[in-house]
Amino acid sequence: MSENQNHHSKISKILVANRGEIALRIMRSAKEMGIKTVAVFSEADRNALHVRYADEAIFIGPAPSNQSYLVGEKIIDACKQSGAEAIHPGYGFLSENAAFAQMVADAGLILIGPSPQAMEIMGNKLSAKAAALKYNIPMVPGTEEAIQDVAEAKLRAIEVGFPILIKAAAGGGGKGMRIVEKADDFEEQMQLAVSEATSAFGDGSVFIERYVTSPRHIEIQVLGDTHGNIVHLFERECSVQRRHQKVVEEAPSSVLTEEIRQRMGKCAVDVARSVNYTGAGTVEFILDENLDFFFLEMNTRLQVEHPVTELITGIDLVKEQIKIASGEALSFIQEDLKINGHAVELRVYAEDPNNNFLPDIGTLQTYKTPKGNGVRVDDGFEQGMDIPIYYDPMIAKLITFGKDRTEAIERMIRAIAEYEITGIETTLAFGTFVMQHEAFKTGQFDTHFVGKYFNANSLKVEDETEALIAAVIASALFEKKSDVVQSDGKSKGSSDWRKNRQKY
Amino acid sequence: MSENQNHHSKISKILVANRGEIALRIMRSAKEMGIKTVAVFSEADRNALHVRYADEAIFIGPAPSNQSYLVGEKIIDACKQSGAEAIHPGYGFLSENAAFAQMVADAGLILIGPSPQAMEIMGNKLSAKAAALKYNIPMVPGTEEAIQDVAEAKLRAIEVGFPILIKAAAGGGGKGMRIVEKADDFEEQMQLAVSEATSAFGDGSVFIERYVTSPRHIEIQVLGDTHGNIVHLFERECSVQRRHQKVVEEAPSSVLTEEIRQRMGKCAVDVARSVNYTGAGTVEFILDENLDFFFLEMNTRLQVEHPVTELITGIDLVKEQIKIASGEALSFIQEDLKINGHAVELRVYAEDPNNNFLPDIGTLQTYKTPKGNGVRVDDGFEQGMDIPIYYDPMIAKLITFGKDRTEAIERMIRAIAEYEITGIETTLAFGTFVMQHEAFKTGQFDTHFVGKYFNANSLKVEDETEALIAAVIASALFEKKSDVVQSDGKSKGSSDWRKNRQKY
Repeated sequence: MSENQNHHSKISKILVANRGEIALRIMRSAKEMGIKTVAVFSEADRNALHVRYADEAIFIGPAPSNQSYLVGEKIIDACKQSGAEAIHPGYGFLSENAAFAQMVADAGLILIGPSPQAMEIMGNKLSAKAAALKYNIPMVPGTEEAIQDVAEAKLRAIEVGFPILIKAAAGGGGKGMRIVEKADDFEEQMQLAVSEATSAFGDGSVFIERYVTSPRHIEIQVLGDTHGNIVHLFERECSVQRRHQKVVEEAPSSVLTEEIRQRMGKCAVDVARSVNYTGAGTVEFILDENLDFFFLEMNTRLQVEHPVTELITGIDLVKEQIKIASGEALSFIQEDLKINGHAVELRVYAEDPNNNFLPDIGTLQTYKTPKGNGVRVDDGFEQGMDIPIYYDPMIAKLITFGKDRTEAIERMIRAIAEYEITGIETTLAFGTFVMQHEAFKTGQFDTHFVGKYFNANSLKVEDETEALIAAVIASALFEKKSDVVQSDGKSKGSSDWRKNRQKY
Repeated sequence: MSENQNHHSKISKILVANRGEIALRIMRSAKEMGIKTVAVFSEADRNALHVRYADEAIFIGPAPSNQSYLVGEKIIDACKQSGAEAIHPGYGFLSENAAFAQMVADAGLILIGPSPQAMEIMGNKLSAKAAALKYNIPMVPGTEEAIQDVAEAKLRAIEVGFPILIKAAAGGGGKGMRIVEKADDFEEQMQLAVSEATSAFGDGSVFIERYVTSPRHIEIQVLGDTHGNIVHLFERECSVQRRHQKVVEEAPSSVLTEEIRQRMGKCAVDVARSVNYTGAGTVEFILDENLDFFFLEMNTRLQVEHPVTELITGIDLVKEQIKIASGEALSFIQEDLKINGHAVELRVYAEDPNNNFLPDIGTLQTYKTPKGNGVRVDDGFEQGMDIPIYYDPMIAKLITFGKDRTEAIERMIRAIAEYEITGIETTLAFGTFVMQHEAFKTGQFDTHFVGKYFNANSLKVEDETEALIAAVIASALFEKKSDVVQSDGKSKGSSDWRKNRQKY
């Protein structure tokens, strides 16, 4: 569209080195800016929507990611071939790969993301922590160096405060990890941890740190330009997780006070400043039951859950990324940014909540998305398509926006009820479970939400109620007594409200 | 959904006395409030989405509106039969019918709308004007009473200022109507007007009023509760019209200053107050080239274009209507309301812009709606459905929201490009024409926009460019020289980007 002037002269064409919903989402913003887009696709994605949406599409290899989407050389070749000046990596795949970022720079292309240096520092927990400490960012209290002496360890443990977590310095996989509730138990648990660590890793030294019993995962969105300006766009609450992965996110968090929000925001900006961060990034924190927060890590890319931030701030994060990569200065300062309303996101995964959230790959036999005020669906599928087994099983992100948290939740429940997916199991009904759960509604939850409240029976009551109502309807229909068709009591995400009911 | 508590105890079930997109839109808000819904449907709407979305659906008669949707008795019978306490009339049909409003009240039911008295006063131009004059609302300057004397008329015309409009008091259909540019021409034109009026209506008396050469249609949304609180929710600009009917609307207007906005808002609240208005209503003004505004009329119902107001204020107008009808006081005051961002709406009509916007009824052979950040589609159709000949040929309202007007427009262009409709002609490509037109982009337009700038050739250039690009692609594909599939130059609303292109 020639009338859609592109004012970002350094970039007139972008290659999107990703697939699925995020590829489409990036292309939409580029299109609105008058920038051409180039898709890349694997064998499995020949018919994918992102391929059709792009102005050009380049085949890059077999379905497994390590033969296509993860091969930096292929991406760079495709970029050169297409004449695109810049590459947007999306999330996942090569998005946090510092070596790839360096390759892109060496090829004379622009990576829409931070510098390879910033990526490298934040990609390693130790160097990330070291960078953050320059700005006195709060860390989970504990020993800075590994120790083995029980008496010394106990003194440090008492300083840190119970409960504490002992974890093997050389550890991993939970081996040599112990939670100690009180000082009396310390010696025994420490000795067990040290001997476990010694036998498992040949190194008995351990770290000691505060064990946060009721942790919330709160992250801050930041944007930094190449002129040294860095702002934050408030927080996202991502505590509802299954298999240690986020499934429901919201912005703002229901627990932060304005004072804590500002302090966290400042810390996030400082973390970004510690690596001269440019582009969009996310600083993750853990928040404890006293609303004390501690730095976890920084994600040097666009997050899956970025739409909730877009909805409450009115800022299109992908457009900002592109403008920053073009060398433009941010067009706003911290004081210009305001939270407006509330947004909730449900990740609609092709997985079975009744079977431990295991992926449930297959064909989208029915696929109809909800509409209406305050509903946004970011997806990459259409009815009849298969969910490929090679990639992340996320079908869509369902995001609702309302004037306040209650409205956003009510709207999510309504939108889930409109969403129609058959052929595979999804997290839709699980989403309704979360939205209707008292702990979620009142904001009193932490990362243990799913483990604490959800089990295979959680969705069954609903199914039974539905079956009962269906039976009543069937009987009523059989008698054909009136012109009125009674409610079919549809409260499940994959309800088929569009299928017509018998009417008189 | 039992968890979706309904706090509006007076209303637990609503009958929606309408069809299509507005019926669905109303039901969505009701559902979010935990209120059950009842649809009514004519023979032509047996398979309509609003019927499937509702908790119950009641058949009310043959397709022609005057045998179903316009029959008050049938609506009230259906309401009683279903046990619904309230009726939402939507727009059109019975929504501004004071007699129906009275019937509803007499039946002991709640009409979600203003009182029959307010409807009646505002339903008549003379009584509406009389009510508004009590609050000194500005009217188009002119004679308040009809006159026939040429000399006296000329004196009044000079007072009013040229150009002026002479119109027959008994007139209609443009007969006896004359535009007079300057005083010198007045006598001759007045005499012609009087004699034309005499021969046409047997009454030679005429009104004289200021002729607004470059009028803009600006309207103010108001909300009044049953406790005497009335607020306004700023303006909508509705100047882009075809066949004297709105087709593109936006909020806020690109020309109002904050000072004029506040004055117009206050006038609108006063107009509403003049009839003790309750519910959602719209006060329409004409704005001239000097930014002077004059009262036109008040619409005593929800407007088609209400979503643009919802997007910039964050207020769900249907929910507010329901709460007001339940007797609740408004939960906000004027000072709480702020404009945030910019919204544009395109009415997607089944009509042919190349053929004078005549309705083009048929089957939606392809029907795929756009998605993504800032895009809202309010519709009532699915692929494969017919647009019934009996009702308004609007297929959908496509609404985009952005942080400013430029972003909303760029997003609209992108969204139109994603919208895929085949089988019938639509106003989609016309929408792109408007969005890309310099007069629209700069905000320098009035109600003459379509007549001034649009003709049957306006969309042809685009078609030719497309054909040319298609030919180039075909030739490139034939040679099969590279892995790169070139752009198909899709810039038309009904482009088929989802149809896969040949790839290698």
